Amino acid sequence: MSEFSLRGFEVSEFESRTARLQKVMHEQKVDAVLFTTEPNVRYFSGFFTQFWHSPTRPWFLIVPLEGKPIAVIPEIGATGMAATWIDDIRTWASPCPEDDGISLVAKAMNDLPKKYGRVGATLGIESYLRMPTNNFLELRDKVESEFVDVALAIHNLRQIKSAAEISKTRQICRITNQAFDLIPNYAKTGMTEREICKQFRIDMLSAGADECPYIIAGSGPDGYDSIIMGPTDRVLNDGDVLIIDTGAVRDGYFSDFDRNWAFGSASEETLAAYRATWEATTKGFAAAKPGNTTTDIYNAMWSVLEAAGALGNDVGRIGHGLGMELTERPSHTATDNTLLVPGMVLTLEPGMNYAPGKQMVHEENIVITEDGAEWLTERAAPEMIIIK
Amino acid sequence: MSEFSLRGFEVSEFESRTARLQKVMHEQKVDAVLFTTEPNVRYFSGFFTQFWHSPTRPWFLIVPLEGKPIAVIPEIGATGMAATWIDDIRTWASPCPEDDGISLVAKAMNDLPKKYGRVGATLGIESYLRMPTNNFLELRDKVESEFVDVALAIHNLRQIKSAAEISKTRQICRITNQAFDLIPNYAKTGMTEREICKQFRIDMLSAGADECPYIIAGSGPDGYDSIIMGPTDRVLNDGDVLIIDTGAVRDGYFSDFDRNWAFGSASEETLAAYRATWEATTKGFAAAKPGNTTTDIYNAMWSVLEAAGALGNDVGRIGHGLGMELTERPSHTATDNTLLVPGMVLTLEPGMNYAPGKQMVHEENIVITEDGAEWLTERAAPEMIIIK
Repeated sequence: MSEFSLRGFEVSEFESRTARLQKVMHEQKVDAVLFTTEPNVRYFSGFFTQFWHSPTRPWFLIVPLEGKPIAVIPEIGATGMAATWIDDIRTWASPCPEDDGISLVAKAMNDLPKKYGRVGATLGIESYLRMPTNNFLELRDKVESEFVDVALAIHNLRQIKSAAEISKTRQICRITNQAFDLIPNYAKTGMTEREICKQFRIDMLSAGADECPYIIAGSGPDGYDSIIMGPTDRVLNDGDVLIIDTGAVRDGYFSDFDRNWAFGSASEETLAAYRATWEATTKGFAAAKPGNTTTDIYNAMWSVLEAAGALGNDVGRIGHGLGMELTERPSHTATDNTLLVPGMVLTLEPGMNYAPGKQMVHEENIVITEDGAEWLTERAAPEMIIIK
Repeated sequence: MSEFSLRGFEVSEFESRTARLQKVMHEQKVDAVLFTTEPNVRYFSGFFTQFWHSPTRPWFLIVPLEGKPIAVIPEIGATGMAATWIDDIRTWASPCPEDDGISLVAKAMNDLPKKYGRVGATLGIESYLRMPTNNFLELRDKVESEFVDVALAIHNLRQIKSAAEISKTRQICRITNQAFDLIPNYAKTGMTEREICKQFRIDMLSAGADECPYIIAGSGPDGYDSIIMGPTDRVLNDGDVLIIDTGAVRDGYFSDFDRNWAFGSASEETLAAYRATWEATTKGFAAAKPGNTTTDIYNAMWSVLEAAGALGNDVGRIGHGLGMELTERPSHTATDNTLLVPGMVLTLEPGMNYAPGKQMVHEENIVITEDGAEWLTERAAPEMIIIK
C-alpha cells in the first residue's frame, strides 16, 4: 500500500529490532519471548491499532530465537496482522472464557526448539502482563520451559531509538510546539483551564497530531500544586500561573513537554522559579552526552534547583525516556545511573516545590547523539511569558 | 455549559459503590480487595487523571470489609487523591525499583482485621493487574491472607450502572451522534479515511467530547475487511463503502457505535447487508429486557443475519457492555447467558461477512430499563446513506 509508506516503518526496521532482541535472547539464554502489551507487540510486529482500548481480549506475540515473530491473536485482528511483516498468524474466536488463547500460546511455545530450556516474559521492573494473572500462571504450568523475567532487557532494547523513530518524535514535538505557541494568542483571564486545553487540543490535531492522549493543566494564584490532574473548570484570574503538560502522538510516537504562563502579573518568586527550571534544562542538556549517566543529568539539574531554594520534588524524578509510550525508562534520579547512549530519547523535566503548595515544573525533549545531545523541542522562552 | 450535566459524582455514589462491593465481599468471604487499574481505582475512589498513560508507576486502592477505601499511591498523586472522598492516603517516592509500593500495600492489607483470612484481586476473566507480575507474586507472599480471584464479581458490580453513570453515557452518545450526522456534509470521494476521521474527531470535541480515544475506519470497493484498523490514507472512490466506529469520552464515560456510508452508488448486496444489520438491532432491542439474557439478544440478532445469508462473523460477539471502558462485560454470544438487569448499558453490534473479504457491522447503544430497554443513541437511518 503506497499510501501507507509515509507512515510506519520499512520491513528492515522490524528485522533489525528482532535481530537485536535475538542477540539479547542468546545472552539471557531464553528460547522465546512472550509479549502481551500494545507497545511491545507493535515494536516487533508493526501491528498498529487503537483496538487495544478494548480490554476484553488478550493478544500475544512470540519472538523465537531464530526467524520471525509468531502472532497468536483473536480472529478479529487477523486481517490487520496479515498486513504487517508477520507470516505466522494463529487465531481463535475470542472472547472465549474457557480458553482465551492460552492453549494456543502454550503449543506455539512448546513447538519451538529448546536450546536453553528457558523462555522470557516482561515480569519485572516497570512492566505488566496484559492478560489475566491466573491465565499466565496456567500458561507457566503448560509451557515446558521455565519462564524468566526479561523486562529490563526489553526496556534497554527499546530505549535506543532508530533514526526512523527519532524522526517521528521530532515531528510530533514540532507539531506540539506550534500549538503551544498559539496559546498566548487566545488564553486570557476569565477562561477556564478546560477551555484553553480544548483549543490547544484542536490546534495540535490541526497541525498534524493523530491524537493527544495526555493534556493536563494546573493553575492557581502564583502557582499550582499538582502536575498530573485537570484540566478543570477553574477560571483563570490575574496573578495566576498556568501549566499545561501534554503528550501528543503522531504515527505512534509521543512528544511529552509542558509550558508555563502567568496571567496579568507574576511575583518575583515565581519568575525566579521559572528561571531556575529553565536554567536547569540548560545544565541538564550539557550533561546529556554519551558516557555520562541519567544521574549526571539529575545532578546537573538538581544542583540548579537546590541553589534556587527548592523545597523538594513530589514527582520522584526530573525526566525520563520517551517514545512509543508517554514515559519510558530510564529515569533521571539520584540513583538511576543508566549509561547514556546515542539514540536515547529523553525528557528533561526539572521541577520543584518553591513554596508550600506551589510547584514549578518545566520540560523539554532531547535525543542523545554521538557527541552530545540535540533538542527535539524548540525551547521555552527563558523568561516566563506573562499573558496580559 | 448548561446543556451538560455536572462532572464527577456525589460522594453518595462512591459510598454506594463501596457498600455494594462490601456486600459482595461478605458473600465471597474476603477481608479486602486490591485494585490496580484505572477504571477500578476511579470507580471506587473518584480519582480521575490522564496520568495513567504513564506506565512507570503502580497505583493501588484497597477496599476493606468496613470503612472507606485506602489509597497507596506514588507521592506525585497525593494532591489529586486528597481532592477525592478518600481520607487514608499513603504515599512513597515512586519510581523506586527496590520497592515500588509493595511493602506499603502488604502492611496496609496485613493491618486490616482478618475475619475471613482471604483477600481479593482481579486475577481472572477479562482482567489484568497493572503492576509487575513478579511484584504481585512477592506481595502474595508478604500478605498473610490468601489471595483469591474476584474479577467476575467486580465486572458484575460495575456492569449495573447508576442513573448518574447512565446520564453520562447518554450525553456522550448524543455528542457522538451530532458529529456522525455532519459526515455526509463534508465527506466525498477523493478524501482519505484519515481526513474524514480528523474532521469527525474535531466535530466530536467541538460538540463536547473530552477525548476520542477510539476512531477506526475501514473502506473498500463495495465493502471493508476489518473493523479494528485504520484510518489509513486510502482515498475514497465511487462504489466504496466506509465504516467509522468510535469510542468517545466525556467525563470518563464512553460511547461506542459506528456508521456506514456508500459513496456514489452501492450494490444490492451491500444495501441488503446494511438492512439486515439494521433489522438485527431492531430485533436485538426487542429481546433486550430484564429476565432475558445476552444470549437471547445474540439469538435475536444472529437469526436475522443468518436469514440474510451471513457467511460468518470474525468479531467473536455481536455486542457487549459499555461504560468507563470502551468494552466491558458481558458479551452477546451463543454461550454467554448473562441475565439482563436494569441499569446495564450495552451495545448492539450485529456484524457479518456477507461476501468473501466483505463485512457489514452496525452498532448502537442501549440501556436495560425496568420493563425493556432505551436507546442511548439516535439510530442510524434504516437504509444506507449514499453520499453522492
